Amino acid sequence: MNLLLFEATEIGADGDVTVSGARALHLTEVLKVRSGSRVRVGLLDGPVGEASVVAVVDDRVSLKCALGGRAPGRPPVDLMLALPRPKVMRRLWAQLAALGVGRIILTNAERVERHYFDTHVLGEACYRPLLIEGLQQARDTRLPLVSIHRQFRKLVEDELAGLSDAAVRLVAHPGAERSMADAAASAAGRVLIAIGPEGGWNDFEIGLLETRGFVRVSMGPRSLRSDTATVALLALAHEALA
Amino acid sequence: MNLLLFEATEIGADGDVTVSGARALHLTEVLKVRSGSRVRVGLLDGPVGEASVVAVVDDRVSLKCALGGRAPGRPPVDLMLALPRPKVMRRLWAQLAALGVGRIILTNAERVERHYFDTHVLGEACYRPLLIEGLQQARDTRLPLVSIHRQFRKLVEDELAGLSDAAVRLVAHPGAERSMADAAASAAGRVLIAIGPEGGWNDFEIGLLETRGFVRVSMGPRSLRSDTATVALLALAHEALA
Repeated sequence: MNLLLFEATEIGADGDVTVSGARALHLTEVLKVRSGSRVRVGLLDGPVGEASVVAVVDDRVSLKCALGGRAPGRPPVDLMLALPRPKVMRRLWAQLAALGVGRIILTNAERVERHYFDTHVLGEACYRPLLIEGLQQARDTRLPLVSIHRQFRKLVEDELAGLSDAAVRLVAHPGAERSMADAAASAAGRVLIAIGPEGGWNDFEIGLLETRGFVRVSMGPRSLRSDTATVALLALAHEALA
Repeated sequence: MNLLLFEATEIGADGDVTVSGARALHLTEVLKVRSGSRVRVGLLDGPVGEASVVAVVDDRVSLKCALGGRAPGRPPVDLMLALPRPKVMRRLWAQLAALGVGRIILTNAERVERHYFDTHVLGEACYRPLLIEGLQQARDTRLPLVSIHRQFRKLVEDELAGLSDAAVRLVAHPGAERSMADAAASAAGRVLIAIGPEGGWNDFEIGLLETRGFVRVSMGPRSLRSDTATVALLALAHEALA
């Protein structure tokens, strides 16, 4: 944890906040704070700043925060991901938030098994703490927006324009000639990256994406597992946009 | 599984091989092969080719393989990694093999906890099947070489030159000005990338690496978990070398 994040409702008008539970434990056991220690803090979807520890009593830590003016910008990459297996998705949440994603759009596809949608891993109660864990790792405060779509066609035809305003849309597809690095480097603003299921998009899906402006980009010569591919492609996109 | 791999000892001179267990199950349940089906096969550290299914009897599948001439080249990236937590290391093995690494050099560092070295995850019986899983995913046959080093200084001063002949040595370090993409792009041949523990290399360690020709490269503005950083940096290195 490189940044301790709070909900807006947790902090008083004068910057006072008291934490217990996992965050308090991290402060006392890992960071070994005591009265007077200073730690980096941030407000979810708000600014970052510094706090000084006022008191450590039992399993509660009281801090006084001084937060800066503006929230960090939203990461310039949006992700549309064919829903992977629940176990894989569970592992991805924190990594996506850490790598930096503006919006996470989870979608169905022919090669996504229907029961993947029934998992508690898609419940906000499960994924929100994992996203926050990733933000605290990466020192960001911008919680990725999340939406879940069981109908691929409806998503692409009717909903996508309202979800991501990225001017450049890329779809990772084996055998494409253009590299992710090249394609993203020519993007001025935001990029939306679509990543298919383990077995790939089917012909209808890739065709529909292309009619909606998605350009095929290569995933490299090696076929990667869905989560490895997602981390790799997000890293390449961020590097190209930097 | 995109490529079915065999040990050299499993295949007869005429290309006959019979598999049982997980590979047979994958063939019959996932790929749904029957007599006459064709599947992509490879020999560990050897060539790739195709096999036809001769018979499926109970839980055993017999194939006749036709393998090509030459083994694929060794991936041009070597990795020196400060040993992460066993749980994280367990998850990394298959991903490293899939991304493509010539050699995996696991090392101690000040911020590596000693007991990490006591895990069964570092035993060949644990990691070899995971590496093979990654190769089968990526359609490669080249098993990464693995060595484990409890003494950082001895490794860097005495052993490293014999382990990796990479002409370019890079060390990921927060705040470095040079990007991984830039640094790797200027490398003609093999690259060795050193990635530190969660808390980073200490001053002695980064200093020693620099005296041995390692050049600091940036990990980007976001601080990532060790496994996410490793996947991201390997993806950037491969892209730059492509």
